Amino acid sequence: MTDRFVSFSKDGQVRYGLHRPEGITDLWAEHGMRWPGLREVIAAGMLEELAAGAPKRVDFLEEEIRYEIPVTNPEKILCVGVNFPDRNEEYKDGQAAPANPSLFIRFPRSFVGHLQPLVRPPESPQLDYEGEIVLVIGKGGRRIAQEAALDHVAALSLCNEGTIRDWVRHAKFNVTQGKNFDRTGSIGPWLVPYRSEAQIGDIALTTRVNGAVRQQDRTGRMIFSFRRIISYISTFTTLVPGDLIVTGTPTGAGARLDPPVWLRPGDVVEVEATGLGVLRNPIVDEE
Amino acid sequence: MTDRFVSFSKDGQVRYGLHRPEGITDLWAEHGMRWPGLREVIAAGMLEELAAGAPKRVDFLEEEIRYEIPVTNPEKILCVGVNFPDRNEEYKDGQAAPANPSLFIRFPRSFVGHLQPLVRPPESPQLDYEGEIVLVIGKGGRRIAQEAALDHVAALSLCNEGTIRDWVRHAKFNVTQGKNFDRTGSIGPWLVPYRSEAQIGDIALTTRVNGAVRQQDRTGRMIFSFRRIISYISTFTTLVPGDLIVTGTPTGAGARLDPPVWLRPGDVVEVEATGLGVLRNPIVDEE
Repeated sequence: MTDRFVSFSKDGQVRYGLHRPEGITDLWAEHGMRWPGLREVIAAGMLEELAAGAPKRVDFLEEEIRYEIPVTNPEKILCVGVNFPDRNEEYKDGQAAPANPSLFIRFPRSFVGHLQPLVRPPESPQLDYEGEIVLVIGKGGRRIAQEAALDHVAALSLCNEGTIRDWVRHAKFNVTQGKNFDRTGSIGPWLVPYRSEAQIGDIALTTRVNGAVRQQDRTGRMIFSFRRIISYISTFTTLVPGDLIVTGTPTGAGARLDPPVWLRPGDVVEVEATGLGVLRNPIVDEE
Repeated sequence: MTDRFVSFSKDGQVRYGLHRPEGITDLWAEHGMRWPGLREVIAAGMLEELAAGAPKRVDFLEEEIRYEIPVTNPEKILCVGVNFPDRNEEYKDGQAAPANPSLFIRFPRSFVGHLQPLVRPPESPQLDYEGEIVLVIGKGGRRIAQEAALDHVAALSLCNEGTIRDWVRHAKFNVTQGKNFDRTGSIGPWLVPYRSEAQIGDIALTTRVNGAVRQQDRTGRMIFSFRRIISYISTFTTLVPGDLIVTGTPTGAGARLDPPVWLRPGDVVEVEATGLGVLRNPIVDEE
């Protein structure tokens, strides 16, 4: 079985471990003094070793823990804005596919973990989903060549890059505020160690709302490849272990439906990709 | 004399202390176990108390230390994009002053401290300056009312929000990459504790290149007041102690000159504001 690394809270303590069908194997109790979180495990290059040496016992049932985003304290979360062909066409501005990826930054606090509710704020009814694949940087670097780019990936995950759609264009420039409402997106359910390009080269990526497929595409159709994204970002900023790169969403967000359909309390969104699991989150109104 | 809190490195150790005309008084040696950095000092509400109880001795000369950005590890650095009237007109798009502030995010590694060189990368000759005032959040909060907004400010500083101008529009949307080249901006020279609105309400903000004034305006002319900026940002994200808000630059960046004039190795940029000191950085080419 594929190893599945999770970060989770139990009794107020953030821990990490392995997800198994029967529950969670805690690795933090044994290794947390040395590597406080998965970011440090990744920086030490220890994901594979911890997985291989993990006990088979189950320490917690899934319902006893709260999933956190898999790297709880990344130095950086960078997101690619328009990365599937039909999404570029959605903008109907007559422009060909862009030459370079649009990028924006999200704060960790804009995300929750697997099964945690996404929060619709009182400021807007336009909470929307965007299913995406997440690259987790293992080996840092600057000006990484495309040929070597995937050597810098330690793990993979999924993201519902939830967006307050009208706040994306609330100001003259930049999507910052629509992408950074607290707890409007999610990352998870877990980290899958990256072993070969076949894991991501042309896999299916699907988003469902209440079981109905809303987004569905394959990574082979991305405008900017995973290699290109890593290389481009590392041109300007030094990537470090644990950095998260959220690589863009297929067409079919609720904003693109006619009329638009927004997420509402009680809805359940699922993001799934081949080999990476299903990231599931219900929607609630902010209390 | 106004208290001036600095973060600095000495022999590879990041410390903090007070800047005095004769040199640096180290506070980290006594308080670092309890509060590892100024972020923790601010979170504890201890700026004023540490200043009042500080010894008068000088531990290091300025030339013996390397200035770091005053809060070395902020959770967030948010920047306001267009916040002086003439800058909005510079865009010549016929639009009136915007309804909400444009915001973008910078990573701490895009900044250096006072006197450290700004680095022009080989990817572009278009390194440009932007002098700005920095608010340092003391008391966290969400949905902070404008009336109470300044109660959440612990300290003030300056920023040269250095920009790789052509990379700001390198992609279809968002200025992320042009604002996040490593070591292209600076924050400092120090933190001045915030005590009253008179410190920032209508002060002069000036940027000089090699001694020649390039930007000069007053904060009273800002499109979005400091109160409004804090209130607006806290609508979507929870502000926490040590967060930095970079509040926008006056007209006169090198990109606006005809023809544009970019910073070159050997240039020295100074950002100055009433009561906040002079942030000075030379320019070097990346090695």
